[in-house]
Amino acid sequence: MARIAVVAGDGIGPEVVAQALKVLDAVLPGVEATQYDLGAARYHRTGEVLPDSVLTELAGHDAILLGAVGDPTVPPGVLERGLLLKLRFAFDQYVNLRPSRLWPGVPGPLVNVKPGEVDLVVVREGTEGLYAGAGGSLHRDTPAEVATEESLNTRHGVERVIRDAFARAARRERRKVTLVHKTNVLTHAGSLWARAFAAVAAEHPDVATEYQHVDAAAMFLVTQPQRYDVVVTDNLFGDILTDIAAAVTGGIGLAASGCINPTGAYPSMFEPVHGSAPDIAGKGVADPVAAVLSAALLLDQLGHADAAARVTGAVAAELAGRTPGVALRTDEVGDRLAAHAVA
Amino acid sequence: MARIAVVAGDGIGPEVVAQALKVLDAVLPGVEATQYDLGAARYHRTGEVLPDSVLTELAGHDAILLGAVGDPTVPPGVLERGLLLKLRFAFDQYVNLRPSRLWPGVPGPLVNVKPGEVDLVVVREGTEGLYAGAGGSLHRDTPAEVATEESLNTRHGVERVIRDAFARAARRERRKVTLVHKTNVLTHAGSLWARAFAAVAAEHPDVATEYQHVDAAAMFLVTQPQRYDVVVTDNLFGDILTDIAAAVTGGIGLAASGCINPTGAYPSMFEPVHGSAPDIAGKGVADPVAAVLSAALLLDQLGHADAAARVTGAVAAELAGRTPGVALRTDEVGDRLAAHAVA
Ligand SMILES: CC(C)[C@H](C(=O)O)[C@@H](O)C(=O)O
Ligand SMILES: CC(C)[C@H](C(=O)O)[C@@H](O)C(=O)O
Repeated sequence: MARIAVVAGDGIGPEVVAQALKVLDAVLPGVEATQYDLGAARYHRTGEVLPDSVLTELAGHDAILLGAVGDPTVPPGVLERGLLLKLRFAFDQYVNLRPSRLWPGVPGPLVNVKPGEVDLVVVREGTEGLYAGAGGSLHRDTPAEVATEESLNTRHGVERVIRDAFARAARRERRKVTLVHKTNVLTHAGSLWARAFAAVAAEHPDVATEYQHVDAAAMFLVTQPQRYDVVVTDNLFGDILTDIAAAVTGGIGLAASGCINPTGAYPSMFEPVHGSAPDIAGKGVADPVAAVLSAALLLDQLGHADAAARVTGAVAAELAGRTPGVALRTDEVGDRLAAHAVA
Repeated sequence: MARIAVVAGDGIGPEVVAQALKVLDAVLPGVEATQYDLGAARYHRTGEVLPDSVLTELAGHDAILLGAVGDPTVPPGVLERGLLLKLRFAFDQYVNLRPSRLWPGVPGPLVNVKPGEVDLVVVREGTEGLYAGAGGSLHRDTPAEVATEESLNTRHGVERVIRDAFARAARRERRKVTLVHKTNVLTHAGSLWARAFAAVAAEHPDVATEYQHVDAAAMFLVTQPQRYDVVVTDNLFGDILTDIAAAVTGGIGLAASGCINPTGAYPSMFEPVHGSAPDIAGKGVADPVAAVLSAALLLDQLGHADAAARVTGAVAAELAGRTPGVALRTDEVGDRLAAHAVA
C-alpha cells in the first residue's frame, strides 16, 4: 500500500491538502498518509526549516504531497531554499512537471482561445541552472557592491530531462516537443541544451520538434497557447513560462505540479502551483482543484493510471458544472470530487 | 541639427526604417540621416559584424535608429552578441525602455482588458545581468560537459537604472514603480536589487512602490496588465516581460524600444522590438508603426518632446482608424503618419 508523506504547510495548504487526501482515499482506499509539520509556522515556533531527521523520514515514503509553504513574515529565500528547493535537490527531482489545460467550464482570459483547445505540459528542469545556489556578493552595502548568480548546466542533467520530455511526447497524441531557451544570448548553456536536444530528437524520429527563444515563447503562450504540446526548458525559464501557461488557462488556482524523480531512487513530490494565500486562509473558500490534480499526478507516478484518470475526470465534471462568480466551499468541492471519482 | 545614424539592417528592417525616417523628416525637417550597412547581409558578404571603425563613427552621432538585424542563416549569437548587445554595452545604454499601450482600435488578446486601459513602461536594465557574456563550458561534446552563465550585478548598474525608473514614474500620472526580480531564489542579486530599490524609493516619497517575483509578474501581465505603471527589472527578466507586455497590447508589431544612455556620453539607440521577419520581407506589407514609435522615443530623448507627441498622436489616429483584418501597405502607412504628424 502506498505510503504518502504529507506536508500540508501554511495558509490554505492544510485546507486544500485535506481535500486531496479525501479524494486519494476514495480512489485508493487504505493509502497511508503521514503528516509532517513543516513551513512558516514551524519555522517561527522552533527556528527549524527542514531538520535532517525529517529529510531522512521523508525519503522513506513513496511520494510527498505538499500543500503550500510560506508566509510574508518569513524572509525571502528561507523556506524556498531551505525547504522546497532543498527537497527538489536532495531527492534529485529533475523533472518538474506542469500540465496546463483550459478545461471546459473555465473562463479563460484570452479572446481567441476556446475551452479544450489548450493542452500542454511543461517539463521544467528541476535540479540545475540558476537554482543551483551558486552565487555571492562582495562589498555589500557599499557603492562597490557586486552580486552574482550562476547558472550551472550539465550534459547529464540537461539530457535526462530532455529524454523525459520526449518520452512523454511519444505517449501523447500530437507528439511534439518545443525546446525553449535563449541560445542567442546564453550561448554556452544554450548550445549545451540545443546539442543535447538534437541528440535525443535523433532517437525519436516520430516526435516533431521546434526551438523558441524564451521571450518569443512567453509571447506565443499568450497569443497562441494552442500550438504547444510538450515544452522542455530550464529551471528558471520553466518557472516563468508555467505561470504564464497557468494564467492563460484560468489561473494558478487550478495548476498542478509534480517534482519527479523518474528513477524512483527518491520520492517524488506533488504540489499545487499556488501559494499559501494568507488572505483567504481559514475561511474554507480556497479552491482545492490544484491540490487534487496534483494528487492525480501522484497517482499516475505511482502506477495508478486508472485512479489518476478517475480523479481527472471528476475535476473535469466539477469545472464543467461551475457557474463563474459563484463562491465555492473547499470541503464541498472535495466531497463532490471524491464522490465523482468513485461513481 | 540632429545627426542620426541609421542601421536599417535585414528583412523588413529597411522597409520600416524608411517610414520612420519619412516621419522624422516631416516633424524635424533637415534631420541628417547617415546609413550604415550592418547585419546579416554584410556578415555574409564580408564576414564583418561591427568593425571598430564603424563603432567609432556611430559614436559621433546624436542617436541611432535601427530597423532589425538577423536572419536564420546566421548562427545564433553572432549578430546578437556582436552587434546589438555590443552596441548596448559599448555605448553604456543602461536604460532599455519599452512602453506598452493598448491603443484604441487595436484588438487586444485579453477578454477583460479594454483599449486605453493598459499604459505601462518597462525600464529594463541593459548592461548587466546574464547579458554580461560571463560564462563558459568544459568537456564540450562529452558526457561530462558543463556549461555556465553568470549574472553580474553591480550596485552602480542597478541603482542607476532604478533611479531612472523612479524619475520616469515621478513624471507620470499614476506614479508607481514595480520592482520585478526573483529574490526568493536569486538571493544575492535579488538582495542587491531590493536594497538599491528601497534606497531610491526613500528619496521619492511621492512614488508608490511594490515588489513582485518574476513568475508572478509574468502572470499578472496576462491577468491584470492594467495594474502596472513603471516596471523596473533586470536584463533577462525585462527581455521576457516586455514580450508579454507586447503580446497583451497587440503584439510585437507595435512595440517600440529605446536603448538609452541618459548621460548623453554615448548615443542612444532606438529600434522596434520585432525582428527582421524574413517571411514577409520585400513585400511592402510590414507594419511600420513600431519603427515610427521608436522614432518618437528618439525625438523625446533628443529633447523634441513636442515632435515626439505629434508622432505619437499620428500613430494613435492611424490605429484608431484601422479595420482589423484589412491588409496594410508599409509605405502608405508611412505617408499617412507623416502627413498626420504635421497636420
Ligand atoms: C517558491 C519558488 C522557490 C518556486 C520556484 O521558483 O520554483 C515557485 O515559484 C514554483 O514555481 O514552484
Ligand atoms: C535579439 C536579442 C539579443 C534581444 C535581447 O535579448 O535583448 C531581443 O530579444 C530584444 O529584446 O531586444
